Amino acid sequence: MAFPLPLKRVIENLSRLPGLGEKSATRLALYLLGRPEEEIRELAQSLLELKEKIRLCRHCFNFAEDDLCSICSDPDRDPGLICVVEDPADLAAIEAAGIFRGHYHVLHGLLSPREGLGPREIRLEALLERLKKEPVREVLIALSPTVAGEATASYLVELLKDLPVQVTRLACGLALGMEVRYADRLTLKRALLAREKVLPS
Amino acid sequence: MAFPLPLKRVIENLSRLPGLGEKSATRLALYLLGRPEEEIRELAQSLLELKEKIRLCRHCFNFAEDDLCSICSDPDRDPGLICVVEDPADLAAIEAAGIFRGHYHVLHGLLSPREGLGPREIRLEALLERLKKEPVREVLIALSPTVAGEATASYLVELLKDLPVQVTRLACGLALGMEVRYADRLTLKRALLAREKVLPS
Repeated sequence: MAFPLPLKRVIENLSRLPGLGEKSATRLALYLLGRPEEEIRELAQSLLELKEKIRLCRHCFNFAEDDLCSICSDPDRDPGLICVVEDPADLAAIEAAGIFRGHYHVLHGLLSPREGLGPREIRLEALLERLKKEPVREVLIALSPTVAGEATASYLVELLKDLPVQVTRLACGLALGMEVRYADRLTLKRALLAREKVLPS
Repeated sequence: MAFPLPLKRVIENLSRLPGLGEKSATRLALYLLGRPEEEIRELAQSLLELKEKIRLCRHCFNFAEDDLCSICSDPDRDPGLICVVEDPADLAAIEAAGIFRGHYHVLHGLLSPREGLGPREIRLEALLERLKKEPVREVLIALSPTVAGEATASYLVELLKDLPVQVTRLACGLALGMEVRYADRLTLKRALLAREKVLPS
């Protein structure tokens, strides 16, 4: 091939990342080669410090720089409300909505017997331990309405059903801005069954 | 925001890369956080060595690890045929076609008065120097048939017109696998004007 080895090595490493094929990896590597040295150094350094400096919060398993994450150590957040999410990306999406002021419990996965992910692996036991020790009023299940998400949610509901805690789920229905004609049948079915009363107000 | 600082830093650095928005940068950063430490270290290390180990071939301006690139130092390549390309990515595409066995001349850009890119900046003068000193039979212009590519090609043809060298260009026409109905008018016009004789053979 026409590229020298150090360039090929970067291309190979980049094309291992999800969503980057060889073509986009090549484009990125050539772009980087044209950038100032400091910029590449900053990118590389930030990658090196990523694993080193980030751990899981010992309380909710969110990413954290210290023993507790920024949410668990925030005295203004409500510890009586726990939102159960699949992973930190989902947590970030909910935080970005700007309305949730409770705590989280991050599963880092969904139940998947095929991949050997049982209740212990996705930290459902740890959630039960939390509920035993902490005064929690409500558990909000915020798992995606996918097959694996629904299965995990059902399992979780079963686990929680005898505990003195309210269990809620994110509402399902039409996404904002979505046209009814393009909604899939299952979404429409959920939206019809969960229709909201408008009048009398 | 819900992400700790070291993670945000990686996301910011990644989202500066072309073609990566904040969403894909976040996805990549979270993916990397889940990978083994060695894998991230290898990526970071390869990035650090990129600028350090790669320079431009002093002969054709292709990327090189040494003074001369792997093509200029290959005794089996024909130095009498020089292919002029915009950048190393175009060179790599031509190499991948597997049929060209000559040398290259890499411009690292196209003429662009607006961006201050004149004949000297894109190494056209260096090309003329090469033609004075080396026994070159043919210069193959392999610039993209875009507005800037065509303008640079015309300028180059003008520069070469009094030299004792044959000048050729890549053929333009329908891309293989393309349907005639979807070809744009200019491409079709070129394909019609440059139609190839089939019979009598």
